[in-house]
Amino acid sequence: MKTDIEIAQEAAMIPIKEVAASYGISEEDLELYGKYKAKLTDELWEEVKDRPDGKLVLVTAINPTPAGEGKTTTTVGLGEAFGKMDKKAIIALREPSLGPCFGIKGGAAGGGYAQVVPMEDLNLHFTGDFHAITSANNLLAALLDNHIHQGNALGIDTRQILWKRCLDMNDRALRNVVVGLGAKADGFVREDHFVITVASEIMAILCLADDMNDLKERLGRIIVAYNYAGEPVTAAQLNAVGAMAALLKDALKPNLIQTLEHTGAIVHGGPFANIAHGCNSVRATKTALKLADIVVTEAGFGADLGAEKFLDIKCRMAGLKPDAIVLVATVRALKYNGGVPKDQLKEENLEALARGIVNLEKHIENMQKYDVPVIVTLNSFITDTEAEYQFVKKFCEDRGCEFALSEVWEKGGEGGIALAEKVLYTLENKESHYKPLYPDEAGLKEKIAAVAKEIYGADGVSFAPAASKALKKIEDMGFGGLPVCMAKTQYSLSDDQTKLGRPSGFLINVRDAYVSAGAGFVVVLTGAIMTMPGLPKVPAANNIDVNNDGVITGLF
Amino acid sequence: MKTDIEIAQEAAMIPIKEVAASYGISEEDLELYGKYKAKLTDELWEEVKDRPDGKLVLVTAINPTPAGEGKTTTTVGLGEAFGKMDKKAIIALREPSLGPCFGIKGGAAGGGYAQVVPMEDLNLHFTGDFHAITSANNLLAALLDNHIHQGNALGIDTRQILWKRCLDMNDRALRNVVVGLGAKADGFVREDHFVITVASEIMAILCLADDMNDLKERLGRIIVAYNYAGEPVTAAQLNAVGAMAALLKDALKPNLIQTLEHTGAIVHGGPFANIAHGCNSVRATKTALKLADIVVTEAGFGADLGAEKFLDIKCRMAGLKPDAIVLVATVRALKYNGGVPKDQLKEENLEALARGIVNLEKHIENMQKYDVPVIVTLNSFITDTEAEYQFVKKFCEDRGCEFALSEVWEKGGEGGIALAEKVLYTLENKESHYKPLYPDEAGLKEKIAAVAKEIYGADGVSFAPAASKALKKIEDMGFGGLPVCMAKTQYSLSDDQTKLGRPSGFLINVRDAYVSAGAGFVVVLTGAIMTMPGLPKVPAANNIDVNNDGVITGLF
Repeated sequence: MKTDIEIAQEAAMIPIKEVAASYGISEEDLELYGKYKAKLTDELWEEVKDRPDGKLVLVTAINPTPAGEGKTTTTVGLGEAFGKMDKKAIIALREPSLGPCFGIKGGAAGGGYAQVVPMEDLNLHFTGDFHAITSANNLLAALLDNHIHQGNALGIDTRQILWKRCLDMNDRALRNVVVGLGAKADGFVREDHFVITVASEIMAILCLADDMNDLKERLGRIIVAYNYAGEPVTAAQLNAVGAMAALLKDALKPNLIQTLEHTGAIVHGGPFANIAHGCNSVRATKTALKLADIVVTEAGFGADLGAEKFLDIKCRMAGLKPDAIVLVATVRALKYNGGVPKDQLKEENLEALARGIVNLEKHIENMQKYDVPVIVTLNSFITDTEAEYQFVKKFCEDRGCEFALSEVWEKGGEGGIALAEKVLYTLENKESHYKPLYPDEAGLKEKIAAVAKEIYGADGVSFAPAASKALKKIEDMGFGGLPVCMAKTQYSLSDDQTKLGRPSGFLINVRDAYVSAGAGFVVVLTGAIMTMPGLPKVPAANNIDVNNDGVITGLF
Repeated sequence: MKTDIEIAQEAAMIPIKEVAASYGISEEDLELYGKYKAKLTDELWEEVKDRPDGKLVLVTAINPTPAGEGKTTTTVGLGEAFGKMDKKAIIALREPSLGPCFGIKGGAAGGGYAQVVPMEDLNLHFTGDFHAITSANNLLAALLDNHIHQGNALGIDTRQILWKRCLDMNDRALRNVVVGLGAKADGFVREDHFVITVASEIMAILCLADDMNDLKERLGRIIVAYNYAGEPVTAAQLNAVGAMAALLKDALKPNLIQTLEHTGAIVHGGPFANIAHGCNSVRATKTALKLADIVVTEAGFGADLGAEKFLDIKCRMAGLKPDAIVLVATVRALKYNGGVPKDQLKEENLEALARGIVNLEKHIENMQKYDVPVIVTLNSFITDTEAEYQFVKKFCEDRGCEFALSEVWEKGGEGGIALAEKVLYTLENKESHYKPLYPDEAGLKEKIAAVAKEIYGADGVSFAPAASKALKKIEDMGFGGLPVCMAKTQYSLSDDQTKLGRPSGFLINVRDAYVSAGAGFVVVLTGAIMTMPGLPKVPAANNIDVNNDGVITGLF
């Protein structure tokens, strides 16, 4: 069987300017990065911004197994299927993070015959967006420490610095560091932390910014520290905004690449789905809606995190209205949610399926709470049986959901036509009346409770004293009107990753909270969230190579 | 008076594919990065590599004032002048570092009407080469610490780790840090240091590598640490080479941009000129020699550092033979070397000029030791007087050097024609018999003494005990055949920056040495070398901005 990278490298890509032309984009509106990647210019946005929007389809998933259930693959394959059906569709995706490529994680370009290409470029430096974010993040950190070193006119309390440095690298040794050692000229000693670039607030900001003005306003609102009086100190007060924006000038422009079947894919931004909102940029989605009749996009993790944030944070802020939601399940993950150990997921087990399908049921109900029509798709695996497939199909249809099998991994767009037809039927026959889960004006604890009860199925929320104190301070500072961004395990609807299926009789335990004032949401922590991954015993890096012809091997 | 960035932004650039076409490069052989930047493909190199070489002209300078004397400006202007004369010439330059743009340093794109453009791109992320180097550098660091964390099979002595992390940022707080704090999963605690990206050995390696094979061999030879037995541990032993090379795949390809007058400029790589060799990449120079009849290139700092390393390291390793050397002086710098304080350099002072011109004299003699013809040029300033100019002219002609005034800052190529004519005359009438200063087989102390006595004019060398011990160990490890890379102040021929003019009766004090085994030279430290700059009281970053049309202001 061919690996994803082998399939990707055999792809006969067409020049990206031809892909662009198929959406009516002229070469003048492209900034090419080689032959197969391009940024879409600000001028293009000005040209298209007053057009009517296409239909917006969100792809999300049930709670996954640790291997993931193929959301990106389904998104790409669905886009390819529309292409096969001569529908004018385009895909909007997140950019993958560089660091994890050297650890254990696979790439984030889809899989099998449902991939976006060039996949090596996408997974390595791509068009440099993440490097620009790293630079802007670390410029702010350098300006902060320099401000303190040069006299600390703002009275920054070095015990209360919130801004962290970042690198797009899995590097456990940088999680907790001490900086400023040495002599007088080397600054003040203090504790610091590095996060991986995708966890930088600048990533979330870039993905939520409407345009350069909005980007600069958001950058200016970043709270970098508190002063000795306990008041927030912002990036604007450090005069850091213009220089950071200059570094982000090109990163703000969406990138266009293609699928293996030459459907366009706007791939832009990639914030964490725990401490951030986990969706591609607003600019990418909005541009996509102007260029095509149907836009297929995805959100990170399962629907309890990814879709909830897409709907309650991104759509709320950006004024987007999704028209349909595709909920991806796998027989494997349903059985896993039914208690089957990871190494026995290949065997038919209808009883476990029946036990685990309550997870899918809860996600269907959740999505219906937003008043958006839901289509369920099974991302097929060779080990699935006909009986298992029929069981899931009937389960969905009994709940008023369209259902289709997806075989895009194996067959590309052809394998997604059944799903695409159901999506088309839904778009043409079922109305979306999207509304967010809670109003802006609800208190922060109310918002958290709404997500915990309505989406997770919890009985309530338990707030640690630190969390209550933090939430009060955030409201006192005037940020009570922001949406909440829940940081929770992706493996369970609860905050305990061992509780599979559809847990009940539990509380959500909030241990702390902080405001991402630039991004515009309040991050609510329900457990220890890892924002700087490490490398495993045998890192993937050990097996990556590139030959004299520039062909890369070992990348996934 | 217009600023450099204003002049650059007013430039009517032509599409880079047209610039490429004027050198016979087809669009197929370009990887475009937007309309005005491109990488030159490996295929282009394969097509041109068997052509005869053009003539190679090195631009270097006397010991400068802290403001610099316009080497890059002269290099760019000379290239433009050849263009005006319908000569097929091309420029090869270093890429500037991002970090210093936010501090006090001006950009490195030339100045006035002798600039390469687009200057904002060049000074910010350009084509991502430096970001790729940062990633490769920090991947190696992460793999190193992870190796120790996962059991340390190689027995790395954490007290003897040589490899440092890097960022392309002026960040004094990162000079001396402690990493690995926290819990067991966060690695072992140890002291670490960040350098600015241009100081990474990977930068030097990229600039000296002939091709991908050579790059990988050099990366593999990097010594990252010593083990408990005192033996070197290399990047190859950490299985890091393939992944680093994959990150550097595109960074290895030279970049093509243009001057304000559309002369081509291959801008690629930018190693420090103290702890590294300070020249653009070998690949860039070699490609340039295949594309044009005349290649104008530069080397960092004054001729005692930049030209010496160009001639003794780069030309030696790459088999390059320079045909002429242009030595840039300014009346200001000559008077400065004659003892005039910085704030009085604008006044005519023939006595100081006569005192300071011995600095120029020594550099002329030095370059003549390599048996390469020398042309002296005065980079003119509005404050220079006719008497000063005549004095310098006669001084040079008395010493067998061609001489010309350069007015390229004010007039672009037109202002460089007098110089270009002298260079052409030299290329046509004077033969170069380039030979390096010392043979490979000399001992390391002999090599250091040769540079100290012959180039710096020292009476001898004083080796600190640590230096003698380090040099012996380096020879014992089998690296005695490498050239030496002197790290010394750029402001004096001696290692004391207060000794201006042509100092005599001094020793060069070597305090330590280490081998850059991947780059292939032995770094000899004569003082404290700053490899991570800081930001000033009012950083340039405070005044940088970008507007809604993407126009950047405040960048120099």
